[in-house]
Amino acid sequence: MAFSITILGSNSAVPVYGRHHTAQYLQVENSHFLLDCGEGTQLQMQRYGLKPQKLNAIFISHLHGDHYLGLAGLLSTLHLQGRSKALHLYAPPPLADILTLQFRYADTTLRYPLHFHPLDMRKPALIIDNEQLTVRTLPLQHRIDCVGFVFAEKPYPLRLNKEKLPPDLSLAEIAALKKGEDVTDADGNIRYRNSDYTLPPKRARSYAYLTDTLYLPHLADSLHGVDMLYHEATFLTEKELKASQTYHATAGQAALLAKEAAAGKLLLGHFSARYKDLQPLLEEARKVFEESYLAIEGETFHITH
Amino acid sequence: MAFSITILGSNSAVPVYGRHHTAQYLQVENSHFLLDCGEGTQLQMQRYGLKPQKLNAIFISHLHGDHYLGLAGLLSTLHLQGRSKALHLYAPPPLADILTLQFRYADTTLRYPLHFHPLDMRKPALIIDNEQLTVRTLPLQHRIDCVGFVFAEKPYPLRLNKEKLPPDLSLAEIAALKKGEDVTDADGNIRYRNSDYTLPPKRARSYAYLTDTLYLPHLADSLHGVDMLYHEATFLTEKELKASQTYHATAGQAALLAKEAAAGKLLLGHFSARYKDLQPLLEEARKVFEESYLAIEGETFHITH
Repeated sequence: MAFSITILGSNSAVPVYGRHHTAQYLQVENSHFLLDCGEGTQLQMQRYGLKPQKLNAIFISHLHGDHYLGLAGLLSTLHLQGRSKALHLYAPPPLADILTLQFRYADTTLRYPLHFHPLDMRKPALIIDNEQLTVRTLPLQHRIDCVGFVFAEKPYPLRLNKEKLPPDLSLAEIAALKKGEDVTDADGNIRYRNSDYTLPPKRARSYAYLTDTLYLPHLADSLHGVDMLYHEATFLTEKELKASQTYHATAGQAALLAKEAAAGKLLLGHFSARYKDLQPLLEEARKVFEESYLAIEGETFHITH
Repeated sequence: MAFSITILGSNSAVPVYGRHHTAQYLQVENSHFLLDCGEGTQLQMQRYGLKPQKLNAIFISHLHGDHYLGLAGLLSTLHLQGRSKALHLYAPPPLADILTLQFRYADTTLRYPLHFHPLDMRKPALIIDNEQLTVRTLPLQHRIDCVGFVFAEKPYPLRLNKEKLPPDLSLAEIAALKKGEDVTDADGNIRYRNSDYTLPPKRARSYAYLTDTLYLPHLADSLHGVDMLYHEATFLTEKELKASQTYHATAGQAALLAKEAAAGKLLLGHFSARYKDLQPLLEEARKVFEESYLAIEGETFHITH
């Protein structure tokens, strides 16, 4: 089943060279998420054949315009298209004020429930915990309050070894095997030992989305073993001073964090308008962390088991 | 010199078929104006090679998102690109609250003076009156307060008939001829009679921008003789009830107003997402008013003298 990230926009501040403001479409099995929503996100979703009506939740990292100015338009489109299904919005608390004002003056009452979940911007928090996955926030360091998001699947059940499976098992007994239990008879004696009939579970997958921020080495622990890390890489190392002055990171720093966190892959994004050619950013990162990739718009990155 | 309108977006409510939300770039000689600013306007300006830094003023008709949600992003881009020149914003009063909130939470103080001119949404008003042109508002009838804008050049001076012009004229005397005065000697006797040395002036040009609104026949007087009228044409006549219920107009109604106002040309826009093919809207209008055109994105319409 799917665990995929489609890049809708990965440029910083000023959109140039056909590159758009930040937004990503994350699909985890049947859950559809939007991470940030820069101006033009709804048009980018159309361009890449993604259906806004499928969205279950939207996550906004911080209140710089290049990360949320497409939100009011997207929410309006869902309304105009007749959505009735609830939508969850996880965002910095003041966004509620902004949206309320915009919808009030437009005399718009959304036809669907929009559940606004104000984020604690200063402390790590578990914001979603359901059967399928957890979503955690990690406070970042930017010019204004900003958080990253970590999406992690829950552990999968054991797989059944279908070749060996006895034909007389009941559904309840199969469920027990998947949970790692043995199948016993009425007296509690083992009829089928779990390890004889099961295989190791599929690996649970994870994705971390970190933008905009200074390089924060202490996050390596929280991110340990993450399958894919998206980390902002606004500048090259030669602009490291500029990066820290503007609370941004370099491609080299992003790679260092990926390496320290033993991440599977690193996606670089939030490119400065000063770089028309992004190849130098990629090369800088790969010197530190080989499995680095550019978050190019329209590309979909799959995380496998 | 230029008097031209470039269509950046002309779709209503939900952006579809690659069509964008409302925005137009109006150039009148050396003045550069933006009329409405739907989501993605700054990207559309880039696409069509228009420079946001040249803008002198932005006019917002009303506070439905498809007419202003690109504004905060555009204003930010001007800021990030280092603009220092003042920008004038003519808009419904509550837009000041929305922008203030957005810039406050983004911790952004614009580097250039943004002069906010709150519009009186209920009465016609003269909002600009300088040497070059006048801009008037016309209250429209929509679900929320909405105004149209009429841009009219001031009368041009008489042209000099260069073939007949005596070589001994001073600059002051030439200026007097252009104003329609005769050239006299010290005793007040006519040396050069104005009509012998001048030709009729260039025709002053005008443009009216009316969206979103019900069909308002009484506007024909205010618009009399306008060179070009942009009028919303959200629906075909077969949806006239739907049009009036949603405070919109049909292509036929737009054409009727153009005819009654004796306009030079009519531009149809603000197309409903229900129309993939816009040709029927054009045909409906042309049955009433031959000089009707579709406001297709990327097209520039020139108004000649």
